[in-house]
Amino acid sequence: MREADRPQKNRARKEKADILFLNGIVLTLDSASNTFNPGGIAIRRGKIESAGPSDEIQSAFESSETLDISGCVALPGLINAHTHAAMTLFRGLADDLPLMDWLQGHIFPAEKNLNEEWVYWGTMLACAEMILSGTTAFCDMYLFEHKVAEAAKRAGMRALVGEVLYDFPSPAYGEIENGLRHTELLIDRWLGDPLVSIAIEPHALYTCSPDLLKKCHEISVRREAPLVVHLSENEAEVEQTLSMYGRRPVAHLEALGLLGPRLVADHCVALNETDIGMLARNQVKVVHNPESNMKLASGIAPVPRLLESGVTVALGTDGCASNNNLDMFGEMNTCAKLHKAAALDPTVLSAETALKMATGSGARALGWEGLTGQITPGMLADLIVVDFRKPHLTPVYNPVSHLVYAAGAADVRHSVIGGRLVMKDRTLLTLDLEEIFGHVREFAKKTGAGS
Amino acid sequence: MREADRPQKNRARKEKADILFLNGIVLTLDSASNTFNPGGIAIRRGKIESAGPSDEIQSAFESSETLDISGCVALPGLINAHTHAAMTLFRGLADDLPLMDWLQGHIFPAEKNLNEEWVYWGTMLACAEMILSGTTAFCDMYLFEHKVAEAAKRAGMRALVGEVLYDFPSPAYGEIENGLRHTELLIDRWLGDPLVSIAIEPHALYTCSPDLLKKCHEISVRREAPLVVHLSENEAEVEQTLSMYGRRPVAHLEALGLLGPRLVADHCVALNETDIGMLARNQVKVVHNPESNMKLASGIAPVPRLLESGVTVALGTDGCASNNNLDMFGEMNTCAKLHKAAALDPTVLSAETALKMATGSGARALGWEGLTGQITPGMLADLIVVDFRKPHLTPVYNPVSHLVYAAGAADVRHSVIGGRLVMKDRTLLTLDLEEIFGHVREFAKKTGAGS
Repeated sequence: MREADRPQKNRARKEKADILFLNGIVLTLDSASNTFNPGGIAIRRGKIESAGPSDEIQSAFESSETLDISGCVALPGLINAHTHAAMTLFRGLADDLPLMDWLQGHIFPAEKNLNEEWVYWGTMLACAEMILSGTTAFCDMYLFEHKVAEAAKRAGMRALVGEVLYDFPSPAYGEIENGLRHTELLIDRWLGDPLVSIAIEPHALYTCSPDLLKKCHEISVRREAPLVVHLSENEAEVEQTLSMYGRRPVAHLEALGLLGPRLVADHCVALNETDIGMLARNQVKVVHNPESNMKLASGIAPVPRLLESGVTVALGTDGCASNNNLDMFGEMNTCAKLHKAAALDPTVLSAETALKMATGSGARALGWEGLTGQITPGMLADLIVVDFRKPHLTPVYNPVSHLVYAAGAADVRHSVIGGRLVMKDRTLLTLDLEEIFGHVREFAKKTGAGS
Repeated sequence: MREADRPQKNRARKEKADILFLNGIVLTLDSASNTFNPGGIAIRRGKIESAGPSDEIQSAFESSETLDISGCVALPGLINAHTHAAMTLFRGLADDLPLMDWLQGHIFPAEKNLNEEWVYWGTMLACAEMILSGTTAFCDMYLFEHKVAEAAKRAGMRALVGEVLYDFPSPAYGEIENGLRHTELLIDRWLGDPLVSIAIEPHALYTCSPDLLKKCHEISVRREAPLVVHLSENEAEVEQTLSMYGRRPVAHLEALGLLGPRLVADHCVALNETDIGMLARNQVKVVHNPESNMKLASGIAPVPRLLESGVTVALGTDGCASNNNLDMFGEMNTCAKLHKAAALDPTVLSAETALKMATGSGARALGWEGLTGQITPGMLADLIVVDFRKPHLTPVYNPVSHLVYAAGAADVRHSVIGGRLVMKDRTLLTLDLEEIFGHVREFAKKTGAGS
């Protein structure tokens, strides 16, 4: 009976894993940029249990969910560090217009039709797009964010969300005092959740009084939560802040005591050297949104200078009304190219830098450093598998170059978030697309002209 | 027997079509921007027989190849007006380097391994990528172009190809006199071919003597063939031409008598107002390659000024070593955004303009005006169908906005070139991917470090 026993003995020696990936190229994106080819990954109880040479993983682990990823590349899931997810509802409603025509003539009127149900379905649509395009985590700012939290949770996505706060009444919460209370209740509601966490999110310096900004900061400090704000998006904002407060936007926040490691500053296009120095000294996290900045003609953020100064710069798409997609592959590609053209120097921002901005730096910016953004034992199992068996990804000299300059959203094959397989062979396992399409098409018809 | 006869009588009244598309959104991109929704297209003997409301097409035509394209958008195939197709072999071999390091340290040594067979398989790989991403026609410049012509023909793609010519000996043809003879033989060989035509392609002003440029121009005039050249790609080229000939590149070509409606000038990044005026007056066609210009840090071409001046500006990807893809959807997206950021004006280049650059303007630039680039009766049936039933393309307010700002290469579902279905439901009908992969992987291993 020895022959029959042997396999069982071998199996007994193996550890159980919830999911096993074998035979792929594994880019850990850890500090040493370790790569295993062929590599494997074992996932257990939501975390990376082990990553290494495929044969070692295969002989150490067994799982009923074992995926052969030959010809594919596994890497940390992409982190979209700034978006307004539910604006998927307005994609293509109006484009190529001066900012104020676009906002006041099209976006604000359409937003009047919003309610919490539309925000929920718009966010579900966004989650579908994000998972399909390799994003495993996002930071959101919008109205009715309690529904964004619910949608992210149902989609199985990691999310940092916060109700947008400003001086005037909000359709979501009414007067601002309710908004602050609402934000604290959101923090209580989602405390300890494995996927969703809450940020305090004052909209911008031109929509929030110094008093409101200070109140937001106070909550951020007391609740140890990130503080997220649009900052210095274009020169007009700088002019406006100068004329209202006598200071440029970054200096205005410094004067109010808001600059610090928990501050996540979105855009940061219009910066001078003094601004960059203040952001660096205070360890402020910056989120770069190159495609939105281009499409809205905001300008080109000085990202190479921020990086040189030691600032953590994450990457985001901004909302779909100003991009018009949530595709982080496109965003990495644009980011790596745009700064070369702006600086007339092909060495200022490499493919590897763009990829790290979209992974590890995103995690650091959103308060998840050491938790996600790398494929290393003990980290949360947030990872994607990209299928390279395509004409535009064959042959392979350098997987990082292909991921940034050649891969597309549709090349993502599997996605795991917090150890849960949310997409397998491009099938979404947490979302019903037809149900979502039905809801958002209804909204488009109601808003007019859409289908 | 009346009941049984009726359908037959109805069928008898219908005209035969080779392919019918029904129930989609049809963007003709004709001069009036006619759109049919739901629309249909009838294709016969390689040409558009009719395009119009779907029910009219359905009652007028019948076909054994009838495709329901509900939820999809049909539009003219994209035209990649400048590429070096076989450089797919070098994609990702070296990136993010100063131009001369990149060329002399990596690209030129790798090109030493080239021969006509590698160029053939590299081009086949490129054709696969191009068809899969919605391109139906391309203009190519490289070595061993007789093999590029063969590959395009086998793939069923429309192509304008020309052997690259320069003062020094070529691995393809030896001395330049052979190159000129080779080009004329290529013209003879492909005369009257329904897919492939030949251009005369001197490389650039810094690699071609005035005498060679004039000889190329003479062949172009005598054979009524397009003349294709890299022109004013960056400021260094302007400096070099100034120091060699005392004139800027455009003025140098004018002095040599080369400017004219058959000249296709690739890049045109470093232009002043005098250059733009000369290009416009002489009806020179310009091909814009925004992603390559960004990645190689060449700069940003003054496309809005060229368009204002009445210059036909087509769109191209350039080769895969400097992009790194042949994806015209990405190129349209980047084109429409880049110029907004450069001009700090969101109105300078609309989504519709970018789409027309990639279709009708491409046809005009390459000498195919009135033949392709629109879906109108009598035109060649070069068209694609893009599937909008995706999260990132739902809901739809404006199909053109979605095509430029949100669609990806992988959303292309069907492709027809010259009336032949070359891709159906994303399956390539003219190419064997595994055969191509086998060849190009062998090349990558030989070149070193690739797989």
